[in-house]
Amino acid sequence: MSKKTSISSIGEFGLIEKIKANLLKGPFTRSGPGDDCAVISPQNGEYLVSTDTLVEGIHFDNSYMSLEHVGYKSVVSNVSDIFAMNGTPLHITVSIGISEKYSVEDIENLYSGINKACSKYNVDVIGGDISSSFSGLVITITIVGHQEVKNIVYRSGAQENDLIVVSGNLGSAYLGLQVLLREKEVFGKSKTKTDLTSDIKSQIQKNLELVERQIKPEARKDVINYFKEKKIKPTSMIDLSDGLSSDLLHVARSSNVSVCIYENKIPISKNAIKFCEEISINPTIVALSGGEDYELLFTINQRDFNKIKDVSGLTIIGKVTSFKQKNKIILSNGDEIDLEQIGWDHFSNKK
Amino acid sequence: MSKKTSISSIGEFGLIEKIKANLLKGPFTRSGPGDDCAVISPQNGEYLVSTDTLVEGIHFDNSYMSLEHVGYKSVVSNVSDIFAMNGTPLHITVSIGISEKYSVEDIENLYSGINKACSKYNVDVIGGDISSSFSGLVITITIVGHQEVKNIVYRSGAQENDLIVVSGNLGSAYLGLQVLLREKEVFGKSKTKTDLTSDIKSQIQKNLELVERQIKPEARKDVINYFKEKKIKPTSMIDLSDGLSSDLLHVARSSNVSVCIYENKIPISKNAIKFCEEISINPTIVALSGGEDYELLFTINQRDFNKIKDVSGLTIIGKVTSFKQKNKIILSNGDEIDLEQIGWDHFSNKK
Repeated sequence: MSKKTSISSIGEFGLIEKIKANLLKGPFTRSGPGDDCAVISPQNGEYLVSTDTLVEGIHFDNSYMSLEHVGYKSVVSNVSDIFAMNGTPLHITVSIGISEKYSVEDIENLYSGINKACSKYNVDVIGGDISSSFSGLVITITIVGHQEVKNIVYRSGAQENDLIVVSGNLGSAYLGLQVLLREKEVFGKSKTKTDLTSDIKSQIQKNLELVERQIKPEARKDVINYFKEKKIKPTSMIDLSDGLSSDLLHVARSSNVSVCIYENKIPISKNAIKFCEEISINPTIVALSGGEDYELLFTINQRDFNKIKDVSGLTIIGKVTSFKQKNKIILSNGDEIDLEQIGWDHFSNKK
Repeated sequence: MSKKTSISSIGEFGLIEKIKANLLKGPFTRSGPGDDCAVISPQNGEYLVSTDTLVEGIHFDNSYMSLEHVGYKSVVSNVSDIFAMNGTPLHITVSIGISEKYSVEDIENLYSGINKACSKYNVDVIGGDISSSFSGLVITITIVGHQEVKNIVYRSGAQENDLIVVSGNLGSAYLGLQVLLREKEVFGKSKTKTDLTSDIKSQIQKNLELVERQIKPEARKDVINYFKEKKIKPTSMIDLSDGLSSDLLHVARSSNVSVCIYENKIPISKNAIKFCEEISINPTIVALSGGEDYELLFTINQRDFNKIKDVSGLTIIGKVTSFKQKNKIILSNGDEIDLEQIGWDHFSNKK
């Protein structure tokens, strides 16, 4: 059994010292944790700030997700918000609330994930806070990034006739969660748990791509780098955290335009389609409604078409229309559906 | 009875719209809540960043503290961290976790307090997050401030022979909590609650100065303004959130020096002393150990003595000594006590 040191045995300050010992300091941090404030040196352009909270039992469940993955994902979801503004992430603060069930080793695992994501995305932890919580783990991360004014991309800049583009493929994170919940249920029902373990492992192994998208998502730094390299400035952008339908409607409303997307253009991975068949669910509805993909959804002026059209991993899924139109999806059979009215029932007889 | 609208009836987005409608936008905020990130314009000097979490049942209790006060205090404790670096506060993000018992009106009250503190200290809410919580209210605020490099004051700059100075008076916030806890207990034990209410109110009224220090503390912007006006740069500074003893030891350790303070110099208000007599507790130990005063504790070079010595509300309580010495307090009777060893027992026979 793994070692479990109670937090009370080393105290809050002891725990903070252990955490601080493993933090890396970034080149723009004049003074990190340990004073009343962190001190960070100014960068070019404006600062970008965002914050995000993960609550145990609501945003994650320890029974299928290690604390290292929770830490990693909590950083990635914040980094993704900076990329969604076309910015460069710089620093984070990490506030955690922990209940008594957590040990020193648990919090070290959480920070191991936080530190891995920090290394990967070149951000550093400049401050934080540890407090008690009555129910499980609550983690709030605030991220600071930067970008020059002329390169910041808002949700509100989409123009009529722009192309709607999405990175990667959609729905996998939601499906990964379904794999994990299904195996958790099987495990819970079983009386002879040891016999089942290998079966559960093989199920998860079979759907590893989906599970990884859920428990260890990545933010699309490569897409932001590509924009820079090719001198592309999207007219609007958002990261996909709530699902394509909801996030696209945010862009449409902010930009005072409407959108039209095509079902047969929505990128969905082969593994995702296979698992959808297995559990009898429509892949399009999963892509529209499943959250946490952390892909980038953006619009570009048509003059940038040639810079996007043949790029593997970027898919044009529709175009921006006048605000007088409805927000719609054209299904593969030619039917038009209002995106704001869409629900599972539109797909109940199709697969 | 006051109106109680369930949050589920207007949804998370409905609640966010209500909150956003009352937020003020500061002059340096290019884009506030509503996109993936806030965008803030660069200021002179370095950025200061700090974060602080308040958990219901640990840092506050709704039975004696309104949500408006919780909101106000949560901003003040963060603003105080910026002042502790000699900085100017600019922006905050507010993340809240709320359980089902809270209504839309409750959250509006919370934000009413947040907005009042923002107005008072010239900061604006640039972003945030609302999520569900299983147990009460959790509020995490991250604050951003700024200051030029040459004027930033760290905990680590105290030098041998510097004077140790504290603003205001100490221990009142802790004693205010004791007033509230005592009246809460009386109220809880009573069978005929309505009869007691007026008695409880009069007790709280009698100790209003102390109660206000607990439920509506202020951060010492006036002290920071005085430094600027008189061209004083403290050699080190911290805000008093944990208690004089603990916070002074932070400064001593960070600065690699020792400290010596005098019991009879510690500023304690008349009302505080009177209440200490009433509940048979030593006022010095309250000042040393009671937290949440949000006063500023700083050290100055002796050449600045004349700029400080006659200022009402600033008290020289001791001096910085060599790291070879012990950290000590000289009691009124001449006894020397090691500050790191101090406990209630040193005062048990004195009053």
